[in-house]
Amino acid sequence: MGSHAGNEQFRISKRASQTIEIASPFLVHIQAVLGNPFDPLTNPEGIVNLGIAENKLCEDLMVEKMKSVQAIEESPCLLYYDVNSGTASAKKSAKRFIDNFLNPITEIDEKNIVIMSGLTSSLETLAFAIADSGEYIMVPSPYYFRIRNDIQDRAEVNVLNVPLQYKTDHKPSMCEMNSEILEEYYQKAISENKVVRGILLSNPNNPSGDVLTEDQLLDILEFANRHNLHVIANEIYALSVFDPEITFKSLLSLPLPNPNMVHFTWGSSKDLGLSGFRISMVYTKNPNVLSYCLSVSAFTTASRLIQHRLQEIIDDKDWLSKVFLPTKFSRMQKRYQEITSQLRQHGARVHTSGATMFIWLDLREFLQEPTFDAENSLFLKFMSEKVFVVPGKELYNQDPGMFRIVFTLDEPVIKEGIRRVIKVLQDCRRQL
Amino acid sequence: MGSHAGNEQFRISKRASQTIEIASPFLVHIQAVLGNPFDPLTNPEGIVNLGIAENKLCEDLMVEKMKSVQAIEESPCLLYYDVNSGTASAKKSAKRFIDNFLNPITEIDEKNIVIMSGLTSSLETLAFAIADSGEYIMVPSPYYFRIRNDIQDRAEVNVLNVPLQYKTDHKPSMCEMNSEILEEYYQKAISENKVVRGILLSNPNNPSGDVLTEDQLLDILEFANRHNLHVIANEIYALSVFDPEITFKSLLSLPLPNPNMVHFTWGSSKDLGLSGFRISMVYTKNPNVLSYCLSVSAFTTASRLIQHRLQEIIDDKDWLSKVFLPTKFSRMQKRYQEITSQLRQHGARVHTSGATMFIWLDLREFLQEPTFDAENSLFLKFMSEKVFVVPGKELYNQDPGMFRIVFTLDEPVIKEGIRRVIKVLQDCRRQL
Repeated sequence: MGSHAGNEQFRISKRASQTIEIASPFLVHIQAVLGNPFDPLTNPEGIVNLGIAENKLCEDLMVEKMKSVQAIEESPCLLYYDVNSGTASAKKSAKRFIDNFLNPITEIDEKNIVIMSGLTSSLETLAFAIADSGEYIMVPSPYYFRIRNDIQDRAEVNVLNVPLQYKTDHKPSMCEMNSEILEEYYQKAISENKVVRGILLSNPNNPSGDVLTEDQLLDILEFANRHNLHVIANEIYALSVFDPEITFKSLLSLPLPNPNMVHFTWGSSKDLGLSGFRISMVYTKNPNVLSYCLSVSAFTTASRLIQHRLQEIIDDKDWLSKVFLPTKFSRMQKRYQEITSQLRQHGARVHTSGATMFIWLDLREFLQEPTFDAENSLFLKFMSEKVFVVPGKELYNQDPGMFRIVFTLDEPVIKEGIRRVIKVLQDCRRQL
Repeated sequence: MGSHAGNEQFRISKRASQTIEIASPFLVHIQAVLGNPFDPLTNPEGIVNLGIAENKLCEDLMVEKMKSVQAIEESPCLLYYDVNSGTASAKKSAKRFIDNFLNPITEIDEKNIVIMSGLTSSLETLAFAIADSGEYIMVPSPYYFRIRNDIQDRAEVNVLNVPLQYKTDHKPSMCEMNSEILEEYYQKAISENKVVRGILLSNPNNPSGDVLTEDQLLDILEFANRHNLHVIANEIYALSVFDPEITFKSLLSLPLPNPNMVHFTWGSSKDLGLSGFRISMVYTKNPNVLSYCLSVSAFTTASRLIQHRLQEIIDDKDWLSKVFLPTKFSRMQKRYQEITSQLRQHGARVHTSGATMFIWLDLREFLQEPTFDAENSLFLKFMSEKVFVVPGKELYNQDPGMFRIVFTLDEPVIKEGIRRVIKVLQDCRRQL
């Protein structure tokens, strides 16, 4: 609100003021980063942004694909309205995509699919649908910080953080995630008169890169079913599992205790590296949730041209499964190994991961003391060295000292970024 | 909600249930229309849809333009995120567009522009910004029915209808619209403890096609300023004034009593015939409204490709001002005269208009009695003749008997539609 807050001349609603006020002070840093982005040629003194979750490792393949789609004559109908919840043809493509890549256990009906304008819109719509203002959705933490904004800014649904326990002494590894932990936090919330309506499950997880096993998923589903909770299955990283030893199971592929309470979401931003598209989908068998999504679909309509572009990509099963995805996975694996090995050589520990686009860096040993203040000091050291990484506090991580780095950026960017990260680590070593 | 409403297994939030329930029963007809659309070749027995507000009269020009934009090599950056509120370059284009076509009275700063994903999103965002849940925004009626959904469905802001008086005996003409009428409804609302936060002014008006004069606008602005009300200037039909004798004045071109309380919106759907694009803009000088729009811009981000396409079109000032718009206006004028003359020959009266894309048809003489039941009976006659027109009740018109027809459709569609409309009128004549 700044200096205008008390000025009746500029008056806005109470809720809008609150939305502005709860914006994280961290945004100041993000503004600084966006205002002075590193470029190896035009701005080598700029800030290297290792914070923005984009996968550019297969830009060459995608640009080539785009050229071929661009060459297709565009029907004049793309200029005009169609059904707000997505064209019949886009819904068919979405169904085939699920069939091809997520191994659904029951037949997908495209009538249960709603095409939307990005995952942010999908999560907000589901929050409005399943919870009233002031109610809660459980979210295992750490989590992508924008999830809080997505469901809270306008839908006014609160996040109930469920901090995961790291199975870690010196070597970080899988997070502990089970119905006991969830039950404990659920009961605590109930005893505080909080109304809990659902659980938002991001699998694979941002920032940790953890992929839940089938057993873990079934355990969590059983917990949700016991309390009649909705489950939002955010699987936006479903096709970003690059370690061949890790098996990813979509919730759509599992026997669900109550299929009407599971709502699947996916978008093109992460898995296809198409964050500029603003397109996503919701699949739900719940007739009321579906009715609601259709009722408010004018707010979430994806542009026709983008629906057309996405269809051309996801309908090309051969290209995706034989060219794009295998290439992407092998490039991700190679890059992940290079970067983590470099970081480890300089004493950093890395949470074991084989999915998403993040290195979840354990720098607890580099903190002056085990506090979030010390984490912030380390973050500011990175900033003064002009490299932007996301501190765990901003991702609602329980313990101080974790940092998230995106490793799927252009080579000159990631190289310079990691060079700067390592410089900070070396400086810290000398001071400790 | 249907048969699932009471079923706890399908439970959704109270607000989502309400949103579904307040959906107009009229939607059943719209579904029927969408499910069986007339096509002269493939479905001549289908329903002719004269209800959907699209301007296809310059499709030939726009398709040609699109081909040239399509041929431009697309930068890979279009694949990725940029600033959620619109790229710097798109904001610059939007500024130039306002400068070129709306004659702004003060210098437009592109920092005050937010690019959004369609007018629906823009109106909703402004509703969230200026009013809290349960508060009111005044809207002169009749108005485009979706305005109610746009501000009510999720933002929970109510519409305070301000019915306009028609200056009409036998020959319908301009609506009476002034601060006295607004003051009367404002005071009545205040006395009922309603909190009124703003007025939403659609100029030119949908459905009447009325264009407010400079004096009328200044009078309304003075009223708004007296009560410190926000003014949402919805000018989505700004470039759809086809009668050369009518002068359209954008609110941006007038001396505003309080510039901080006027928020301008425009989108590409109507004036450019690009409803499939889902792109719009908000321009506001109010620093708090602007902050809020930026805070929630992740919900309203337009796709990069669409921003690029729109820029290529609105930056081509010469083409717009010398080719597209003059051609559009002359085609609209010709079509309007043809259709209204045909309708008048069959005894229909037409509200005088020279803007938007509607014929606002006065069929009061064709009603069995002056009631909305009779209006609905006439509507059902049109439906049984397989032509869809929008009855005034759905547009919150005060008096029964008015119908809205879109005249800017493809020739075979409008021809068959008007033939069916006239058939119904002839049948009515015989029965009266």
